Amino acid sequence: MQIAIESPIDMHLHLRDNAMLRLAAPLSAETFAGAVVMPNLLPPVTDAAAMEAYARRIGAACGPDFRPWMTLFLKDQGERELLAARSFSNFFGLKLYPAGVTTNSGGGVLRFDRIGRTLAVMQEMGVPLLVHGESRGFVMDREREFLAVYRSLAEQYPGLTISMEHITTAAALRLLDEYENLVATVTLQHLLFTLDDLAGGLLRPELFCKPVVKRPEDREALCEAALNGHPRLMFGSDSAPHPRSNKECLGCAAGVFTAPFALQRLAGLFAEAGRLENLQAFVSGNARCIYGFAPPVKRVVLTDVPFHIPALYRGFGESVVPMGAGEWIPWSVSAPLPGASACG
Amino acid sequence: MQIAIESPIDMHLHLRDNAMLRLAAPLSAETFAGAVVMPNLLPPVTDAAAMEAYARRIGAACGPDFRPWMTLFLKDQGERELLAARSFSNFFGLKLYPAGVTTNSGGGVLRFDRIGRTLAVMQEMGVPLLVHGESRGFVMDREREFLAVYRSLAEQYPGLTISMEHITTAAALRLLDEYENLVATVTLQHLLFTLDDLAGGLLRPELFCKPVVKRPEDREALCEAALNGHPRLMFGSDSAPHPRSNKECLGCAAGVFTAPFALQRLAGLFAEAGRLENLQAFVSGNARCIYGFAPPVKRVVLTDVPFHIPALYRGFGESVVPMGAGEWIPWSVSAPLPGASACG
Repeated sequence: MQIAIESPIDMHLHLRDNAMLRLAAPLSAETFAGAVVMPNLLPPVTDAAAMEAYARRIGAACGPDFRPWMTLFLKDQGERELLAARSFSNFFGLKLYPAGVTTNSGGGVLRFDRIGRTLAVMQEMGVPLLVHGESRGFVMDREREFLAVYRSLAEQYPGLTISMEHITTAAALRLLDEYENLVATVTLQHLLFTLDDLAGGLLRPELFCKPVVKRPEDREALCEAALNGHPRLMFGSDSAPHPRSNKECLGCAAGVFTAPFALQRLAGLFAEAGRLENLQAFVSGNARCIYGFAPPVKRVVLTDVPFHIPALYRGFGESVVPMGAGEWIPWSVSAPLPGASACG
Repeated sequence: MQIAIESPIDMHLHLRDNAMLRLAAPLSAETFAGAVVMPNLLPPVTDAAAMEAYARRIGAACGPDFRPWMTLFLKDQGERELLAARSFSNFFGLKLYPAGVTTNSGGGVLRFDRIGRTLAVMQEMGVPLLVHGESRGFVMDREREFLAVYRSLAEQYPGLTISMEHITTAAALRLLDEYENLVATVTLQHLLFTLDDLAGGLLRPELFCKPVVKRPEDREALCEAALNGHPRLMFGSDSAPHPRSNKECLGCAAGVFTAPFALQRLAGLFAEAGRLENLQAFVSGNARCIYGFAPPVKRVVLTDVPFHIPALYRGFGESVVPMGAGEWIPWSVSAPLPGASACG
């Protein structure tokens, strides 16, 4: 069996910087036409100059056929800063991190009542808001507790497109359906796993991410929405490369590395459910409809020939353990066909 | 400040075997007068001969001043096997593992309706039943789901003392109060930590055990019961040494190593809550009342002088990462005074 996917887009990607960027970015570019790139470097990407420089480093790492849609780390940017950002054609939106909830989010937002000016300007300019939606409560409740913030933002800024990033619960899906200006991304790991997979048998650091994987009924609800082509649910891998030494240790970093085979694994998931016809919308179509994206032309042909996930991805002095290291997955890429230099 | 504890007992201890036993057992014997030793070796300890041989190996590792109360792994033992076991003065009870729920439990019980004969004989002979009370459901629900089994056992065998081992939830505590023939043990880690500590920040394999640490309200309920001297709640460390290579890896074993400093850490916890007067009952008195234990005479003097937990316990070619490796805790042992050779 085969399926061709046109210009797959990863709506939530961590590429880090320096050697890790040079290792990770080409692995995303192998199967994706572009990705929305997160700004939580150290220090975070907060202005147009830093963003453009980061985009150049990404381009240098993976070439012109992969389009990085760039984001700024939301602080208290105003009209001037947003105009400067918007003059850059690859600028996409602002990412809101509540302070301290995930990797490199220490400089994030502490009080939501202090970012009203920025959000008002974003709404006026049509700049999307991407949100890491977790409270600082008990780890299994953080997303649910944050839903009140989403609700408040959706009501206060009806003209602002608010993306609930990497949602993990059935409750978030229900909220998504309540407000037209909410959209959402979901990762591969939250479609496949629950806390049982992370900590129900042996403890598996390769599956540890923020937000943590949740309950079986949450996973099932997310799967059902993705497989049935929910028009405001998009694939965002949240793929995050960490050095192996930060995963196999006593204080293991949050982040799951899936970018090199996420599309293949999704094809297997959609095929198994008899829903391959909805994969195009999930990995590209919905994002194009919602944001008017024009990704580089790239046709990726997927086939039900098993693919072996390497035990480790190495390069440039870095090594990253992927999700499912050493396992076989049922689908692989038979022919990624990069388009012409349509990259913005 | 100082407090003297008479003959502290660890009501739930894993010592493993061979080199690990030789490393771990003396560390328990430093502060405890005795311990109830778990039988989940590979193969499990299922008969009197294996139990006596294991007790001899424990004695060889830590000397005569530490009393190991021995348990058998519950299979389908009958009157003959239990009589043989009971002829050994250090025999304590049988441990029920539902098949596959924790380390080395593969040979455990699959169907509770098949062990009625064994339980009836135990009740008749006054042999306690110790239970790892988890279902095979979602990891956060396993203990709660198992409570129906506890309830059924408590009602079917009113003359059997049933110990709910290492309880982790407020719901288990409520059940404990419903039946006179239920008793319970609780670990140090379940008094101190929740899933937030295991997976809410970085992922911490050193805190990973079965049953997993639970919600804040569960921890609070357990603490309240222990600190207030609940007469049927006893300290059982569930301390379980795993080689370091099995904790810092991609498939991390369940088990937390606390035995060498559990008593000191408990002293800090009880002192902080102003409940030092209840520590004696929790770590010794309750067990003596419930089971009529006569532990070796040993007075341990604890004092509020900080103790540094080593990064690693090493010996005999093994190395074990303890809970809180490298951290300081507020209390230490100022004078462990082993009694005469009162060991049974």
